[in-house]
Parts: sequence; C-alpha cells; structure tokens
Amino acid sequence: MSLILARRMQAIAPFYVMSLLQRAQQLQQQGREVIHLEIGEPDFPTPAPIVNAGIQFLQTHYVRYTPAAGLPELRQRIAEYYQQYYRLTIDQQRIFVTPGASGALLLALAATINPDEQLLMPSPGYPCNPHFLQLLAAEAGRIPVGTATNYHLTAELITQYWQPHTRGVWCASPANPTGTVIEPMILKELIAQTERLGGYFLSDEIYHGLEYQQPTVSALNFSDQALVINSFSKYFGMTGWRLGWLIVPPVLIEAVEKLAQNLWIASSTPAQYAALAAFDPATIDELIQRREQFRQRRDFLYQALADLGFNLDKKPEGAFYIYANCAKFTNDSFNWSQQLLESTGVAITPGKDFGGAQAHLRVRFAYTTSIERLREAVYRINRYIQMSA
Amino acid sequence: MSLILARRMQAIAPFYVMSLLQRAQQLQQQGREVIHLEIGEPDFPTPAPIVNAGIQFLQTHYVRYTPAAGLPELRQRIAEYYQQYYRLTIDQQRIFVTPGASGALLLALAATINPDEQLLMPSPGYPCNPHFLQLLAAEAGRIPVGTATNYHLTAELITQYWQPHTRGVWCASPANPTGTVIEPMILKELIAQTERLGGYFLSDEIYHGLEYQQPTVSALNFSDQALVINSFSKYFGMTGWRLGWLIVPPVLIEAVEKLAQNLWIASSTPAQYAALAAFDPATIDELIQRREQFRQRRDFLYQALADLGFNLDKKPEGAFYIYANCAKFTNDSFNWSQQLLESTGVAITPGKDFGGAQAHLRVRFAYTTSIERLREAVYRINRYIQMSA
Repeated sequence: MSLILARRMQAIAPFYVMSLLQRAQQLQQQGREVIHLEIGEPDFPTPAPIVNAGIQFLQTHYVRYTPAAGLPELRQRIAEYYQQYYRLTIDQQRIFVTPGASGALLLALAATINPDEQLLMPSPGYPCNPHFLQLLAAEAGRIPVGTATNYHLTAELITQYWQPHTRGVWCASPANPTGTVIEPMILKELIAQTERLGGYFLSDEIYHGLEYQQPTVSALNFSDQALVINSFSKYFGMTGWRLGWLIVPPVLIEAVEKLAQNLWIASSTPAQYAALAAFDPATIDELIQRREQFRQRRDFLYQALADLGFNLDKKPEGAFYIYANCAKFTNDSFNWSQQLLESTGVAITPGKDFGGAQAHLRVRFAYTTSIERLREAVYRINRYIQMSA
Repeated sequence: MSLILARRMQAIAPFYVMSLLQRAQQLQQQGREVIHLEIGEPDFPTPAPIVNAGIQFLQTHYVRYTPAAGLPELRQRIAEYYQQYYRLTIDQQRIFVTPGASGALLLALAATINPDEQLLMPSPGYPCNPHFLQLLAAEAGRIPVGTATNYHLTAELITQYWQPHTRGVWCASPANPTGTVIEPMILKELIAQTERLGGYFLSDEIYHGLEYQQPTVSALNFSDQALVINSFSKYFGMTGWRLGWLIVPPVLIEAVEKLAQNLWIASSTPAQYAALAAFDPATIDELIQRREQFRQRRDFLYQALADLGFNLDKKPEGAFYIYANCAKFTNDSFNWSQQLLESTGVAITPGKDFGGAQAHLRVRFAYTTSIERLREAVYRINRYIQMSA
C-alpha cells in the first residue's frame, strides 16, 4: 500500500463537536427540532451594508485576484479602525488581509517558528491551535489554567514553563471556550515578560468587540512587536465569507508577504469588497446593538444555568460562551452531551475539544441564539436533569 | 530583539513576477499603457451564470459556515462532472472543496508527508510547490526536464531520482510555465512506476479543460490511489473567488476531513454557492467558446514569437502559456524583461521564477488577453528588439 498517513495525523484530533453537530443535523432531518448551542456562529445575519456591498461589487466588477496582502483600501480601513477603536497608528503595510483568522495564524507561525520549537499557550483553549504548530513540526506548550487566573496565563506561569526551545506565547482574549478577558494590566505584564525572556507575543483577538464589561485593549497597545490576529467572522458577523487579518511588526512584513503569495495567492475578492462596509457607521451601530443582545443572552443564560445547578465561574466578560462545570450531573461530559442531544434536541459542546484537566466535567454553551430559544433549551435541560436524577 | 524569522523563510523565494507586476502598476499610475502578459489570470470575467448564482445566494440566504469538506451539493456536482468529463465514478466523500487549489495542496501534503521526506517534481515548475513542502519541513526533489521529455518526468527519471526518503511524485499537466501536456500513456507509466516504488502520485490538474489538441485524462483514470488537485480559477474563470478541490483515496478521507476542520473551518460560502452554476450547460458552452479563443491566441502568439526570432519548442498543448527561449536577444532574461517593461510597457515573466538550468534564457508569455492586444505587444517587442540590436 503506497499511501500512508503522515505521522502528524495521529496527533491531530477531530473536532468532537463536529460529530455531535452531524448527529444534530441527522436528528433535524428526521424531523426533530434541535436547539444549537454548540457552534461558535452567531444567529445574526451578516449586517446588511456588508451584504449589499458584496452584491454591488459582483454586479459591477470582474472578480479578479487582489494583491496577496489584501485590497489596499481594506488595509487602509482596518488601519483607520485601529485608530478609532484602539487609538493606535498602524502602518497599513503591517496589515495583511487573510482567508479567515486561520490564514492569519498560518502566516504568523510559518514566518516565525522553526521545527522543534515551541509556543506556550493556556489549556483549555481553542482546539485547532496546537495543530497549526504540528503542521510546522513545532509544538504547543500547554499550560494548565483555571479559575485562579481567570483561565489566562500569568507572568509567573510563563517564566515557570519557559524552556530553551520556547519561542513565544500565544494567548486569546476574550477566550474560547471560557469567554474570559485578560485585564489590561495583566496583558501588559504577559507581553513584557515574554519579551524579557526573548520571545514574541501572539495575540488572538478574534472576539474583540464582544466584551461586556469594558472595551478590550489590543496587545499592540503595549508592544509594537506583538503579532495580532483578528477576524471578520465573529464581531462583524461574516463567518461564511472567510476573512480575517494579521498585524505584524515591520521586521516581518517582507516574509509574511512572500508567504501569502505562496500559500494562497490572495484572499477572497468578493469578501474583501464586502468587508469595506464593515466599518461603516451603519454597520457599527448594528454591531453595537447586537453586542447588547449578546450581553442580555449571557446574563439570562448564566443565571439560568446557575439555577439548574451547574457550577459556574464568575460571569465571563466576552465572546459568546459559558464554560460550565456539570460535575453535579455527570463525570463524563462527552457522554452526557450526547445523551442530552438524543433526549432533548439541545446541542452543546463537551469539554473534550478544549483540553485541560477538567475537560470531562465541562460543557460549553454558545449563546448564539435568541433568549426565547435559550429559555426553551434551559427548560429541556431541566427536564433531562430531572429525568436522569 | 525577540522576533527572528523562521529558517524556512530563507528558502522561500518571492515571486519575482510580483515586483515586475508592481512596477507595471506604477507605470500605469503614471499614465503609461501596459499590456499584461505576466499573470496567469485570464481577461475573461467569471461566466455570468456563476456570478448570478453568487448574487442570488447573497440576496436570499444568510452567509453561514458550510461543512469543512464543502457544500454537499457542490461535492455532488463535482462528482457528476467527473462522470461526464472523465467517465469516472467518484464517491463524493472523496471530494473536498478547498480555498483555492492552494488549500487543496496544503491538505494533500499535510495528510501524507512527514518532515524530512521528499516529493519528486519536474523543474522548471510552478514556483510555490517547493515552498509548501518547506512549510511541512519536507523537501522538493526537483528533476531537471527539457524538450526531450516535453518538460515532463518519465518513468526512468522517477526511478533514477528515487531515494529512500522519497514519498511520491508531483506532476502538473497542462504544466506551468511550459503549457505542455503529459500524454495519457506516459501519465499511466508515471503513476504505475511511482506506485511500484511504493509512493503516491499527486496530480495537479488545475489547467484541465484548457487543452487544445485533445481532452486530457485525469490521473484518476489510471489509479484510484492518486491524489488530484483542481481549481475553479482557470478553466471556470473564478480566480478571485478562491475555490478549488481535492480528490483523495478513501483511506485519506478521515484525515483530510480533520485537517480541513482545523486549518480553515470551511471554504468561502458565497463562492461555493456561485460555483454550483459552474457546471451548468450555459456555463460550459461559454467555457468551450473561451477555450477556442485561447487556442486562437496561442496559435497567433506562437507564430508571432517565432517570427520575432524567439527559439520555441513545439507548440504547447494546454494552459495559456508559451515558455520562450530568448537567447537570441539576451543571456539575462530577468534584466531583459525589466527593460522590456520600462521601454515598451509589455509585462512578461522571466524564467527565474520557475527554476531549471535555462531559466536565465527563458521568458513566459501568458496569452490571457485579446489577439488585438497580443498583436500590439508583438509590435512593441519587435521595436524593442530592433532598438536593442
């Protein structure tokens, strides 16, 4: 047999939530009515100004390749957004438009990390992150975190886990699956300590804009040597368009440009023209209203889950997730989630996807649906709990 | 300084044609009128049925993530196309829709090749290919080819260059930059010899549909163990939409699905809905007419370049390139191309991008513009040659 899987495939786990999603879709096809709280995709449509810009582009222009680094007008708009939102002046040459934040990650890592080197990151975390490193024959140094540090790293943890082959630190705030936000002064310390140790800081900011206490700062507010990843998917409501961006220090511009040329030629042209409308006042007004709705959903679901008997950490400050402890009901959250789906049609994500010592006692709820639907989900979960008791 | 480039960046060359393209755009902004024969992007717009399908989708649907492997309806359409075009029955589970053929390449290689292993490929070839292997800490085994083998590998060359760490063979037909097509019986031999040596065959078929002698066969016509990469960019005229596909043997389905989930979640949703119209009879009729126009352009340009004194190989059978020997005019095709652009506003690609022993004596012409424009380009080149003589 001539085809053998590359070794890295053994280390790349599937998204467990995907098999659950498939089962949920099967149930729907059988006529069951499913409430989806498992996928990180908001129920809101792409804001109308963005969709209209996409349609208008297609009606009036040929769909050509754009430059590898992105449409210059869009890079300019993103730069302006950093000025408005973060009070930061970013040369647009440092901004690369990418096929989703996934593309931004691949660019950032490919430009900076060698085989057998390591980036430190918190665990639990987004399941794909270690796999990007495996692709490059590098490795993830996962640092267990919990409530004591709001599920984020500390300068002490970075120092403690730093090894000779560590190249840097990779953090996300607001975080997935916990929704927790790194406080500005902590972020400043994390970056300073990373750079003191001779490393670089990779900041995943794809949930920026979805903060419910106070606006978040960017890693770039503390260091122009940080690498920042962002996305049009979550806050801007453009999931299916597959568009993100990467901001790099000037020293990386040439390398990242070469990589983008080689790895994908260019990002989607219709998506880029559509995204030109993402920063319009009408769009931003709409997004601010949606943020308020997310906040209300969070408040509703947090209280409801607590009432059901889930053991909750302090209320998450961002994204659209609650990472609940279900130890009162099960010591196998994977099995419990599957049974919950079969029994009630409520789909949630078991902790197994996100790693960490407590994964088997955790489930992630995405409040990406209306309060009415959340209320119905809570009703069903309650019935399931009562029946199983 | 905490940020150091990864070592792989030293081995990743920029596209030289990109700096030439930038200069061409500068000249245009200065009011010069430039004829673009340098980029592999046809002048034809995306066929109207495809654009209309994209617009209609945006007008009537939310732009959600699709499954990682692609929209089921589109995988089904692609399977039907293989039935019609190649007389092949392909289970749609083996078909993965990807962000461009670039995404397909990344999936194929990441699933099958380990660090320090090698794929054999012909040189000259598409410049990005070796870089995908470098990304995975693997390597390209470039085999020099020339007119004697129509710029393709032979079973003998594969045997001669095979090493213990060789995992397989990667060929493209029609090829870039030469436009040459592997004859079916040769393709059969290449695949058989590769599999006899215990390797797998990776077939880049992104220029399929653009053959001017006879329709090309797919590697899948000879082996269901081959991996096939294809694209909606070239024949289907969808460059800026960034959509391609990969076909794998059943043994790889699970691994490739995991990789797609991790590497990019999903391909562009508007592009996938638009591409549903790519196989409509109205679209195919239009594409067949365009192929005939490409054929006429090829015939015109081939004769005109020969008349100018370029030393040409036999007429290329596919794609939209002529890889001409310019030794009569220069022994530095890179410099000559730059001077040609400055002097006449005709942009072509120097051989340097494609490698091979004769790169400094070669230039690639892309006949991606009308015969009227090609005629004007030839007129200007002739004047340049006369002036330089």
